[in-house]
Amino acid sequence: MTATSSPIGRSRPRPDAPPKTRGALRYGADRRVARLLHARPVLATRAHARVLGVDTAAALALPGVVAVLTAADLPITARTPARLAHPLAGEEVLFAGQPVALVVAMTPEAAADGAELVRVRLEPMPVVLDPEAAMRPGSPPTRGDIEDAPAGAAMDAQTHAAVGGAGDASIEAEELSGNVSGRTRYREGDIGAALASAAAVVEGTFETSWVHQGYLEPQVATAWQEADGRIVVETATQGTFAARSDVAKALGLPHHRVRVVATPLGGAFGGKWPLYETLVAGAAVALGRPVRLVLERSEDLVATQPAQPFRIEARVGAAADGRLLGLEARIVADTGAFDDSSAESLAAVLIAGPYRWPAFDISAHGVRTNRFGDGPYRGPSGPPTAFALESLLDELASKLGIDPIELRRRNVVDEGGPMIDGEAWPRIGLSEVLDALEASPLWHERGDLPPDEGIGLAVGYWPGANSAAAAACKVSPDGSIQIVTGTVDMSGVEGGFQAIVAEVLGVEPSTVGMEVVDTAGAPATPGSGGSTITYSVGRAIRLAAEDARNAIFEAAALQLEIAPDDLELAEGTVRPKGTPERAIPLARLVRRHAGEGRAPIEGHARSEILSLSPSVAAHVAHVRVDRETGRVEVLRQHLIQDVGRVLNPALVAGQQHGAAAQVVGWALRERLGHDANGQPQATTFLEYALPRAEDVGQISTTPVEVPSPDGPFGAKGIGEAPVIPGPAAIANAIAAATGVRIRRLPMDPVSVWRALAGERVE
Amino acid sequence: MTATSSPIGRSRPRPDAPPKTRGALRYGADRRVARLLHARPVLATRAHARVLGVDTAAALALPGVVAVLTAADLPITARTPARLAHPLAGEEVLFAGQPVALVVAMTPEAAADGAELVRVRLEPMPVVLDPEAAMRPGSPPTRGDIEDAPAGAAMDAQTHAAVGGAGDASIEAEELSGNVSGRTRYREGDIGAALASAAAVVEGTFETSWVHQGYLEPQVATAWQEADGRIVVETATQGTFAARSDVAKALGLPHHRVRVVATPLGGAFGGKWPLYETLVAGAAVALGRPVRLVLERSEDLVATQPAQPFRIEARVGAAADGRLLGLEARIVADTGAFDDSSAESLAAVLIAGPYRWPAFDISAHGVRTNRFGDGPYRGPSGPPTAFALESLLDELASKLGIDPIELRRRNVVDEGGPMIDGEAWPRIGLSEVLDALEASPLWHERGDLPPDEGIGLAVGYWPGANSAAAAACKVSPDGSIQIVTGTVDMSGVEGGFQAIVAEVLGVEPSTVGMEVVDTAGAPATPGSGGSTITYSVGRAIRLAAEDARNAIFEAAALQLEIAPDDLELAEGTVRPKGTPERAIPLARLVRRHAGEGRAPIEGHARSEILSLSPSVAAHVAHVRVDRETGRVEVLRQHLIQDVGRVLNPALVAGQQHGAAAQVVGWALRERLGHDANGQPQATTFLEYALPRAEDVGQISTTPVEVPSPDGPFGAKGIGEAPVIPGPAAIANAIAAATGVRIRRLPMDPVSVWRALAGERVE
Repeated sequence: MTATSSPIGRSRPRPDAPPKTRGALRYGADRRVARLLHARPVLATRAHARVLGVDTAAALALPGVVAVLTAADLPITARTPARLAHPLAGEEVLFAGQPVALVVAMTPEAAADGAELVRVRLEPMPVVLDPEAAMRPGSPPTRGDIEDAPAGAAMDAQTHAAVGGAGDASIEAEELSGNVSGRTRYREGDIGAALASAAAVVEGTFETSWVHQGYLEPQVATAWQEADGRIVVETATQGTFAARSDVAKALGLPHHRVRVVATPLGGAFGGKWPLYETLVAGAAVALGRPVRLVLERSEDLVATQPAQPFRIEARVGAAADGRLLGLEARIVADTGAFDDSSAESLAAVLIAGPYRWPAFDISAHGVRTNRFGDGPYRGPSGPPTAFALESLLDELASKLGIDPIELRRRNVVDEGGPMIDGEAWPRIGLSEVLDALEASPLWHERGDLPPDEGIGLAVGYWPGANSAAAAACKVSPDGSIQIVTGTVDMSGVEGGFQAIVAEVLGVEPSTVGMEVVDTAGAPATPGSGGSTITYSVGRAIRLAAEDARNAIFEAAALQLEIAPDDLELAEGTVRPKGTPERAIPLARLVRRHAGEGRAPIEGHARSEILSLSPSVAAHVAHVRVDRETGRVEVLRQHLIQDVGRVLNPALVAGQQHGAAAQVVGWALRERLGHDANGQPQATTFLEYALPRAEDVGQISTTPVEVPSPDGPFGAKGIGEAPVIPGPAAIANAIAAATGVRIRRLPMDPVSVWRALAGERVE
Repeated sequence: MTATSSPIGRSRPRPDAPPKTRGALRYGADRRVARLLHARPVLATRAHARVLGVDTAAALALPGVVAVLTAADLPITARTPARLAHPLAGEEVLFAGQPVALVVAMTPEAAADGAELVRVRLEPMPVVLDPEAAMRPGSPPTRGDIEDAPAGAAMDAQTHAAVGGAGDASIEAEELSGNVSGRTRYREGDIGAALASAAAVVEGTFETSWVHQGYLEPQVATAWQEADGRIVVETATQGTFAARSDVAKALGLPHHRVRVVATPLGGAFGGKWPLYETLVAGAAVALGRPVRLVLERSEDLVATQPAQPFRIEARVGAAADGRLLGLEARIVADTGAFDDSSAESLAAVLIAGPYRWPAFDISAHGVRTNRFGDGPYRGPSGPPTAFALESLLDELASKLGIDPIELRRRNVVDEGGPMIDGEAWPRIGLSEVLDALEASPLWHERGDLPPDEGIGLAVGYWPGANSAAAAACKVSPDGSIQIVTGTVDMSGVEGGFQAIVAEVLGVEPSTVGMEVVDTAGAPATPGSGGSTITYSVGRAIRLAAEDARNAIFEAAALQLEIAPDDLELAEGTVRPKGTPERAIPLARLVRRHAGEGRAPIEGHARSEILSLSPSVAAHVAHVRVDRETGRVEVLRQHLIQDVGRVLNPALVAGQQHGAAAQVVGWALRERLGHDANGQPQATTFLEYALPRAEDVGQISTTPVEVPSPDGPFGAKGIGEAPVIPGPAAIANAIAAATGVRIRRLPMDPVSVWRALAGERVE
């Protein structure tokens, strides 16, 4: 592209790092707002109950308390069952921890004191906690309006474009209770015959737990009404346009009457899709003053949208040479009190992994219970499904006496071949990742380990997301470049965007300014999630920069009297190709152009990507198991991932390091449990055991580059894939160390001790 | 365009009116900013002096005072003589009222008290006040660095594209002092011979005064540095991009390290181009805290950028049939202590009016003095030049016994014929305005008036401005429309933009949201001034809406399986032409399109207009003169203006009503005087006599529509023209009432009384 060395593939510091590390950044809870009122939610103490009344008098009598709002007080006009349309429980409590009232006060302290004094009178209703039981006809309903609720209200289409294709309609005929919120079935070939003909069949039932995204900054949102009546919501969100749409829908307004401003994210990982925006917006309108809600940690652990648990029964059969013959799977997802996630339909696709299956029969059900509302967590439905499949493949390899990498290599999908859902497989870097896995130094040490240590591997993939996006690229009169986007930065993607633009325009990345703006000014931008940003927004930004480049060439063509096609951009100048001595610095070009009253030099692009670029990841884990205590120590992890093209090596490695930490939590530690009445058991970070630095072990990473045909300079979305095979790799390492296979996450000391003691894990 | 009735030409309320009239709007001084410091300037007490020192100790000792900043304390790296690069006087004071130091304190009161205690030690230097004397070689310089200052540092090119063409180089050879900041000469034909051959020649010397723009909200700007080091400036400005450029230049930063947010304007009229933005930005960086400066009224009247006065000597000759034969003019503009306005070069063009001149010799000089810095005021250089020319034409008509309208009609310029500066005259609506003038009921009453009453008329034009602009038009998933622009609204143009978009997209104007955003997100937008917004930005918005329309048609073509060309937009739907029953509501179309992962539906346009669309205005004034006191009462005014196309009749009339008020100020009341030492004499609105409602008389308006080929739906910029002929019309009415011609503005009671008493006006 340019004569200067390309910025693509060079490590650069994250532009967002200095203010974060200096502690100078203001998060949502730190921003000053004039006349701000502070809110404290009153949470339901029962998992399922009828609301008989809310006694507010004592709270209202407290100095500083301005109002106690209940559902009826909010100016919400939407009539859908979506969670965002019901930020406060109305007549019925659906889970323990659901907000029923909102105390609004002059100070956070007064709000907290007021919330203590609100008495919610509840009449208990049957609590439904077990999804298997809840599915059966005749189960008590998890919510009273269940007949009216449409099945499977889909999440924002932008974030789940990953799920496509057509399922098998037979599943609709099953007789199930109204608690079933979604059902998907994929069938191909004769699964019975396929498994009967197999040289080896392995099977198992796998269970995972409710898992919190574990962000450090709790949920926070602030809202107020401007003088012209517009509503402004400042919120720590992954998706400003999604939040705008939710608030506008809830309050019955056109989108431009709502402006959503993203505050910097202090962690999100999928947990910060819109949640409390409609509540604060409704409260601000009702009270005519700005209202802020910052959750306490104890509230955040019970009243948000953690990832749902799965129960997966799976059987896999293979020929003696390792060719996979068939997959049978029955998946049940506990989608909690609401059903906004489509977790089960995603799981139905992901359970098959990146492998060829001549026959399969996969069914998946999403079932409502009286627990939380569910939401996505990095690689949604990925770790649980890979845990099941990759555990079984590991077992199959040892049963057949085939190297586990070789087993997988024999079943690599063909580009263009059918995915589980009937879509065609795009180009996928599985073979290349298996090559890198083969070369993993860690993997080669597996034969020579002390007792009770083991090394395991697993593979996983994320299909990617193909969001539509728009972007603008402005060239200012001083020759500096500005990218305009609404992208919420979760992982330093801004640095990648700078590299993309620098490459297109032949400038240094540091001269490219990122203008990350709110919904008023931003070109349409998808939310940050599902590995969509680099792939989809990055592409829109590349196209916008190319559009700006064309405008620069047109301007230079006028000034140099030369055809645009004969020009090139390099070293911050525009010049006739191969004639550096005729180069004009961009600043001079733009100034002269503007001085002549010519059109502003700026580019704009609206991009759609109808193809997906899956990212395959492999994980090698080295563990030591303490047979006395059941404690598993992760000593080393090696993450290998096809990232398409490395835009910024430091950022790619950063994503993989973060994944290495999170999979230790998934695999060994994290579980949001409930007691028999549906009371949540983890309400602090003491009880909810996030991994600490000492738990993660030594990490190494290997990026693999199988360019995406559609991503910017071949790059793919890389956020999700590296967490997916992790728990399976750790389980396989435990099996290698102990010979015992554990089928339930987390593999905490008690579970492991029991398994080693020969007890059935439960 | 659509089957529904067009929104163009329908009166609609201004969207900005309700919050303004309810008092709910927050202006720049009302906005809460955390940790805000308050600034008070210390103003120079002499008009020209060397700064020997600034004694700050007493101020710094005052509780609450945080700092006393002088020029050396500001992190300004720019090395140009521009006023914005020197927001505090350094070694030399150039005018009485120039800020020398800035006291910054915890409260406005402490800052004011501190400012009282700062002692600026000054050594007097020769004060230069008379431009004619200042021009002469050997005049004392108005500033010490005068030899180094480049002549005529031009204003922002966007706002003065009105000035073009090539002058006569002979003027460069004149021997003049270094105080001359700009010189322009236009010559054609033999002016001596032309005037000698004339049947009648009239001549006069006309003088005008320094005039303040008279906005009610004083200058206010606030700045702070974000955690990532970017500088944010919130300012009551007409041009956010101009302010960004000034601040970035002053502080030596790329443009994207500065974000400028416009606060609502409480009046501007040309007076709110960047002025104190570099001062507050520099102070905020120096102190590491937000700093706000709100001028007191007394400061605003002495330390801002009022409009400059002119001295115009002019001679006009005509043939017996009224054909104009020649114009000779010598113009001297007092451009004050800085020279940012190019007022004289604009005056050199405007002095010729919209008339054909076979011969002319026009020279214009801008001269620095030790008074204020100058700036534009609605119709810059227009009222003074029209005052001179139209007074003389009135006299000429009566001398030749020709009806004054007829006189003008005989000299209407030809489209394509040469303007004074050599550019070709675009289509201009002078004949049509003269037709409307002929039909003016007020004009027809002139023959039958009580004694001491008179009716006069005058004509003027504004060449227009042809700024480049970009704009975006987003169609949101709910089918609502958002226009993204950086336009600062001075006059309700948002309503006009809504009508333009509604017309293009076949929707109701109320469904079009205006997203007026800051420099971070806004497409490149010129400042609001020079009648550029409706013409230039309106055109960019129209093109952006058309781009969005194409995107809608593409989306609908996919869904309806019909060619885009066969589709139309009407009543909020898209449909096959003439097939209303197949119409799809926009909301449904967009939702379906987004659901399929298709590119966002949004348009973008970058527009240049290389032609001008001048607006011609005529003014009829009816006055009564009190011969005892010299007081002139304006009884009635009739304003006629070619507006190209009326987008919103209420807004057009509003512009003309405002002009009627302002010309009464220009003509009869307003003058920022200085004493012999250069001390300003008007420091309150008691001494600076803005007109009040009772002074304005009865107003009627007539819009004339001569469509602009380039403006949106034929519209032109209309802000400037209606003030231009006003003072001349009032002077001509006074002459009609009294037979006495007054050649100096304002025509205040003392001047009029003296003129009536036969004294020479001085």
